[in-house]
Amino acid sequence: MRQILRLRVFSSLLTSTMRSHTYIDSLGSASIMARVLDGKALAGTVKDELKELIANWVNLGNRAPSIRCILVGEDPASHTYVNNKIIAARYVGINAEVIKRDSTITEEQLIQEIEELNADSSVDGILVQLPIPETMSERKVCNAVAPEKDVDGFHIVNIGQLCVDMPTLVPATALAVIEMLKRFKIETHGRNAVVVGRSKNVGLPIAMMLHSDKKHDNGLGMDATVTICHRYTPKEQLAIFCQNADIIITATGVPKLIQANMIKPGATVIDVGITKITDENGKSRLVGDVDYDEVVKVAGAVTPVPGGVGPMTVAMLMHNTFQAAKHLAQKAQLQ
Amino acid sequence: MRQILRLRVFSSLLTSTMRSHTYIDSLGSASIMARVLDGKALAGTVKDELKELIANWVNLGNRAPSIRCILVGEDPASHTYVNNKIIAARYVGINAEVIKRDSTITEEQLIQEIEELNADSSVDGILVQLPIPETMSERKVCNAVAPEKDVDGFHIVNIGQLCVDMPTLVPATALAVIEMLKRFKIETHGRNAVVVGRSKNVGLPIAMMLHSDKKHDNGLGMDATVTICHRYTPKEQLAIFCQNADIIITATGVPKLIQANMIKPGATVIDVGITKITDENGKSRLVGDVDYDEVVKVAGAVTPVPGGVGPMTVAMLMHNTFQAAKHLAQKAQLQ
Repeated sequence: MRQILRLRVFSSLLTSTMRSHTYIDSLGSASIMARVLDGKALAGTVKDELKELIANWVNLGNRAPSIRCILVGEDPASHTYVNNKIIAARYVGINAEVIKRDSTITEEQLIQEIEELNADSSVDGILVQLPIPETMSERKVCNAVAPEKDVDGFHIVNIGQLCVDMPTLVPATALAVIEMLKRFKIETHGRNAVVVGRSKNVGLPIAMMLHSDKKHDNGLGMDATVTICHRYTPKEQLAIFCQNADIIITATGVPKLIQANMIKPGATVIDVGITKITDENGKSRLVGDVDYDEVVKVAGAVTPVPGGVGPMTVAMLMHNTFQAAKHLAQKAQLQ
Repeated sequence: MRQILRLRVFSSLLTSTMRSHTYIDSLGSASIMARVLDGKALAGTVKDELKELIANWVNLGNRAPSIRCILVGEDPASHTYVNNKIIAARYVGINAEVIKRDSTITEEQLIQEIEELNADSSVDGILVQLPIPETMSERKVCNAVAPEKDVDGFHIVNIGQLCVDMPTLVPATALAVIEMLKRFKIETHGRNAVVVGRSKNVGLPIAMMLHSDKKHDNGLGMDATVTICHRYTPKEQLAIFCQNADIIITATGVPKLIQANMIKPGATVIDVGITKITDENGKSRLVGDVDYDEVVKVAGAVTPVPGGVGPMTVAMLMHNTFQAAKHLAQKAQLQ
């Protein structure tokens, strides 16, 4: 315990922005709890910055950026997510509308709706809330959005551009993680990062940016050594990789997958997981992939769930919409 | 030494296709040398298979597949590479021509040449031999090739498709590595793989396929846990990751980067590096990234340089060209 304490004090000297607090464990020893990376507060800052930037943009005579969110079916979680996006958009000055469609809509009809929005010069960003009904190909639908309006960054052209370090629209959750690492001043250069989960929309683009060259064109590279773990990584190997990691980013939807004994003292833990569970009192609540109450005693910094990556994802979606609007305006001017 | 010997005998029992041979070290102990993964012989097999498939294709009334290799400037290594590709193409029955251009050609002129080949229905595959003069943007030139004729797999659409597990044209060197793992029956599912080097044309697509889901659409996923190491991975961390790896794939161009003490006994080592050095006798020769003479005493399987990945890269380029030809013929039929 003493050694851990010493390590932690040392690391807190190194990072002056760190805000930790002391706790007394069951044996009466004092230790330092991890700095909590408050995604909700940071999202507030990002949205306030965007609000000002967009106000300036409109003051210069430009149309307000606009986004259209297509919502298919009645999934309550999807309705909540889309609602949060609309509220955030309107807060920062983005013109936002939901296009609700019944789950009986066909893939062809959905793609036709998307193509109409692609052709509509008053629309900058198009988002299809996932999941869509299983009768449709998610990949086909994502690729139907014009790459320049694809504020979710799911189109193969945007993924390809991200892979080769070109400026592009980056999936909002992945961008949220990278932005949090930057704004909370977590060093990544030459550090070991583990990404747990290989989803194409989250784990993959995070791994892409984390390992890429910082000096390249799009400014998203982080120069970390990156290990991608997934469902077929044996449990004991996952523990070994995590124990050697300076940064762990987990996006699996498996509650308590990441335990305290898997964490190197002082490491940063970013929790992208979000699962609705029923706790011992019969109450339902949201939890991440991390055994938070225990991990917070070992890690140097950790994101809470809720209030971590979630709100930042919404903020970065607004960032993407403004990027798309500026890009399309510039392009229109050149024509 | 005895323990290593036991391990090695055990592993040779497991893989019946393994061909190892005994050596006597300086202390007189007998050990087993790694199985040498003969890329040259395998490339011969792949080319013979292709030759038969293409002959059948032509017998069915189809035009022979065709490739055009654009070669800019006088780099002798590039001339050798292109020459090897042309010889291989003609061997398997692909119509192949080199288009030689002076290094004074402008980017615009080069892109115009590419666009003419894009529009030429008698051409299936287009390859621009890299490097091109530094006055040009390699990225812009690679993106000028029509994705369906991009037999090098460098276009952002092909990279994006690879990332989301869609069927696509995969960079030939990366495909060569995956094909060698498959044909030499190296188990990857749930194993630890380390990719050393993060180049966009080699390290990146290899890492993509190695970590991806085997069950997905394109049949390229390998389900391995993958660590991407690069120039900013500290040397001692590179050693730790390699020592824990079942498969090491190195593509850096740094001779002797991978030493015997970094290898887990029985691991597979694939060497993509190729560097021309002048040896102690003043003779120039080609070497890889691996300290071959020592690593061969510890590893379970290792590729030689030359004669490993190199010849297989050429064979997989032929595979890509035939894939492109079939795809374009199918598309023409549908129109």
